[in-house]
Amino acid sequence: MKIYDIEGFPNPLRVRIALAEKGAMDKVEFIPIDVMGGEHRSNAFTAKNPDATVPLLELDDGTCIAQCNAITEYIDGVFDGPSLTGTTPKERACIAMMNLRAENGLMNAVGAYFHHATPGLGADLETWQCAEWGNKQKEVANTTMAYFNSVLENNEFLAGDSFSIADITAFAGLVFADFAKVDIPESLSNLQAWRAKVAVRPSIVG
Amino acid sequence: MKIYDIEGFPNPLRVRIALAEKGAMDKVEFIPIDVMGGEHRSNAFTAKNPDATVPLLELDDGTCIAQCNAITEYIDGVFDGPSLTGTTPKERACIAMMNLRAENGLMNAVGAYFHHATPGLGADLETWQCAEWGNKQKEVANTTMAYFNSVLENNEFLAGDSFSIADITAFAGLVFADFAKVDIPESLSNLQAWRAKVAVRPSIVG
Repeated sequence: MKIYDIEGFPNPLRVRIALAEKGAMDKVEFIPIDVMGGEHRSNAFTAKNPDATVPLLELDDGTCIAQCNAITEYIDGVFDGPSLTGTTPKERACIAMMNLRAENGLMNAVGAYFHHATPGLGADLETWQCAEWGNKQKEVANTTMAYFNSVLENNEFLAGDSFSIADITAFAGLVFADFAKVDIPESLSNLQAWRAKVAVRPSIVG
Repeated sequence: MKIYDIEGFPNPLRVRIALAEKGAMDKVEFIPIDVMGGEHRSNAFTAKNPDATVPLLELDDGTCIAQCNAITEYIDGVFDGPSLTGTTPKERACIAMMNLRAENGLMNAVGAYFHHATPGLGADLETWQCAEWGNKQKEVANTTMAYFNSVLENNEFLAGDSFSIADITAFAGLVFADFAKVDIPESLSNLQAWRAKVAVRPSIVG
């Protein structure tokens, strides 16, 4: 299978962490996409992924899977190792809920701030911006950080006692927050401690 | 188990269709939330669901599951009947991808238009609006409709040959589009035919 992505970007990071958690980084051929040059919006790429986003997973039969959550669902299902998406219906539901909160409230909120209320990836790529929306989403990201801090008062990880896709999404969201200069308050000590713990996982330090 | 919701609203509809598809409507106690009166933002409700959204699933052990996708994951796992979220990793990934496209590109896009670029639920509830964003999201919804029309050229349902959560999300998104007066072009004949077929499923006609 192939993954089209660009190293160092926040959404590609999510799938790379998931693959590393499953010990499967060497099972995938990575194909770099020149996002800064707009390759993700080319006809050749949008024929595979109409979302015009990376990462994109292409299976050996030609099936293309876009969206980090969908790609991680596949990775989690086909490779061995601890489950990232849960096994019982209750686990799966709790992880899905927290992952959505991490995606919408942190990753995508930081992304909206970055792409709409800052120069983002530059004028050639940021063809439509709405600064008012972007700035509001920065507030959403800060609210989500405070909420996660409260969750981590009692939980070791965001969806309970086990590391999951929700932790991956939130961790990548904080990496993006650093890059976009969205402050992560020092006062959120549970979040800071969780981040430090996740940052030293073998899937992340490599 | 209990579901806190309000009948007739688009996101509650998604979970009610999922329950009906699994033949499980009578396994759940529905508790009405006075959304128009702001009950979903009360301290009592946000203690259960910090997202301040309906529907919310509360299990008998007190666990609260918010977010339609997470609730449907639970429903699909615990009740019999055809799977709504897929069984193989490839099926699960394809369904998750199409469901995300339906959620972000249609349901949430229509919602953003309705809540930001129209009077929405009224001044008491729409405390922050960004019309520029809302109007752009209406364009996103129209683009997604055209994309789904192309998908349905070759597929019986959005994620292949079987009805899935992606169809539920998109169907509810079109119901919301009608309500919000976001046109569904007659020229999108595959989408119209799919909609007519889904509309007569027993889970929807009741």
